Amino acid sequence: MTALLINGEPPTDPSFAIASSDRGLNYGDGLFETMLYRGGSVRYLDAHLRRLREACQRLGIVGLDETRLREDIHRVCGGASEGVVKIVITREGVGRGYRPTSDLCGTRIVSLHSLPPAARRTTVNLRWCEIRLGRNAVLAGIKHLNRLEQVLAQREWNPAAKDGETIDEGLLLDSEGELICATMSNVFIVRDGAIATPDLRFCGVRGVMRGEVLRIAGELGIATSETALWPRDVETATEVFITNVVRGVRGAAALGSHRWPVGPITQSIAAAVSKQ
Amino acid sequence: MTALLINGEPPTDPSFAIASSDRGLNYGDGLFETMLYRGGSVRYLDAHLRRLREACQRLGIVGLDETRLREDIHRVCGGASEGVVKIVITREGVGRGYRPTSDLCGTRIVSLHSLPPAARRTTVNLRWCEIRLGRNAVLAGIKHLNRLEQVLAQREWNPAAKDGETIDEGLLLDSEGELICATMSNVFIVRDGAIATPDLRFCGVRGVMRGEVLRIAGELGIATSETALWPRDVETATEVFITNVVRGVRGAAALGSHRWPVGPITQSIAAAVSKQ
Repeated sequence: MTALLINGEPPTDPSFAIASSDRGLNYGDGLFETMLYRGGSVRYLDAHLRRLREACQRLGIVGLDETRLREDIHRVCGGASEGVVKIVITREGVGRGYRPTSDLCGTRIVSLHSLPPAARRTTVNLRWCEIRLGRNAVLAGIKHLNRLEQVLAQREWNPAAKDGETIDEGLLLDSEGELICATMSNVFIVRDGAIATPDLRFCGVRGVMRGEVLRIAGELGIATSETALWPRDVETATEVFITNVVRGVRGAAALGSHRWPVGPITQSIAAAVSKQ
Repeated sequence: MTALLINGEPPTDPSFAIASSDRGLNYGDGLFETMLYRGGSVRYLDAHLRRLREACQRLGIVGLDETRLREDIHRVCGGASEGVVKIVITREGVGRGYRPTSDLCGTRIVSLHSLPPAARRTTVNLRWCEIRLGRNAVLAGIKHLNRLEQVLAQREWNPAAKDGETIDEGLLLDSEGELICATMSNVFIVRDGAIATPDLRFCGVRGVMRGEVLRIAGELGIATSETALWPRDVETATEVFITNVVRGVRGAAALGSHRWPVGPITQSIAAAVSKQ
């Protein structure tokens, strides 16, 4: 971490910065955003803040001061050339117990982190994760702090493994076997010249880059759909790609015994995203 | 909160005690226990620590120092006559990202809180919650820190409502409509003179008092089963009761238009629990 503000102030000591009673710690009662800072601006900032605003409404958290939040973001980025900006907000509250004593936004953490190391390949190798995502329409789409499923999914494989192919990302199914996403990316398939991505009505995060890709595909005249997808849809796709705001668009090269070339639709969307 | 230890030390200021990078805060990557302290001892302490140990194994968190944890519990209770002891432990880790950089137990919080106000009735009025619990067998049964479903469930009603009957607890179904638990209690039904409780194979917390009730029922010669239950099983039950370690065993008096007397099996189990 290279810069940190908590409720607008740099903490005296980041190791002693948050109340042990914080509802984010005790229940995951809050939200986060992860954003790319590059070239002097936070990319897709308005889309991130729109998702955060909608997520607050979903959880019933009120009073997030967006003006101050934008100031915090500006301040943590000051002087840096690039990085990942993370926002965490949690519901205010005192005492023990699931029932909130307040619905106000309590803690607002804004931090700047180094970019992850550049990838050695432009494509990714995928795996199927064993853990399944629980279905909960109330929590679907938003970036809340209950992320144990993603943590356990990433613990399933070692990305530094020397034996065999390096795995970059894991695809996740829900409890009914529907394809939802990857552990930190959304997933798209190409079939019959059109792109399709899971509709996320029951789980998964509605990624900002996912929205951008759907918008750009529309501009490029490529048909899109948000729909229920299953493992066989991935295995029979002509192209597969994953997206997030930090890594952009990356074509899948391998998944088990399946191999894909990086096809023309993935290439045209990746090119359009990188030009933005 | 009346006493607090973080990694065995009283914090200088509980409002500034935890790292903003704590994985418990960022991902809910940790566990908790809530225990009753009364009459000079923590009730069912061994059962709580057994569940915590098993839950650590499930999440792959290692190195919890149980000797120190027991010392912390002893210290926070020192001088108090009664209260609720809460333990929170989180996975160690630095930096951003779901993937753990360590599987060691990082933060160990032990606190003593006042008991909740004594109930004015010995029975409880129940409601059906609208939110459904997502199914995830990997997380089922353990008391992990991803508790947004319980938070949102409790936000569904106002226990202080003056219009009509006060509601004490809400029953929760999972995404398939199976009965699982109440927001902070386990649930039991009586039918044909035997007791049944949800088997929690897909979600819910395997409460310490739930285990005690199953054990006591066996001693009393009452048949028990852990099985799939549905709303109609509650509505056709001759008795319904809920359990947790703080409140013990409480018979349900009302749920929608259903009314139950506190029946003989609920009474005998509640009496046996309160004698312990």
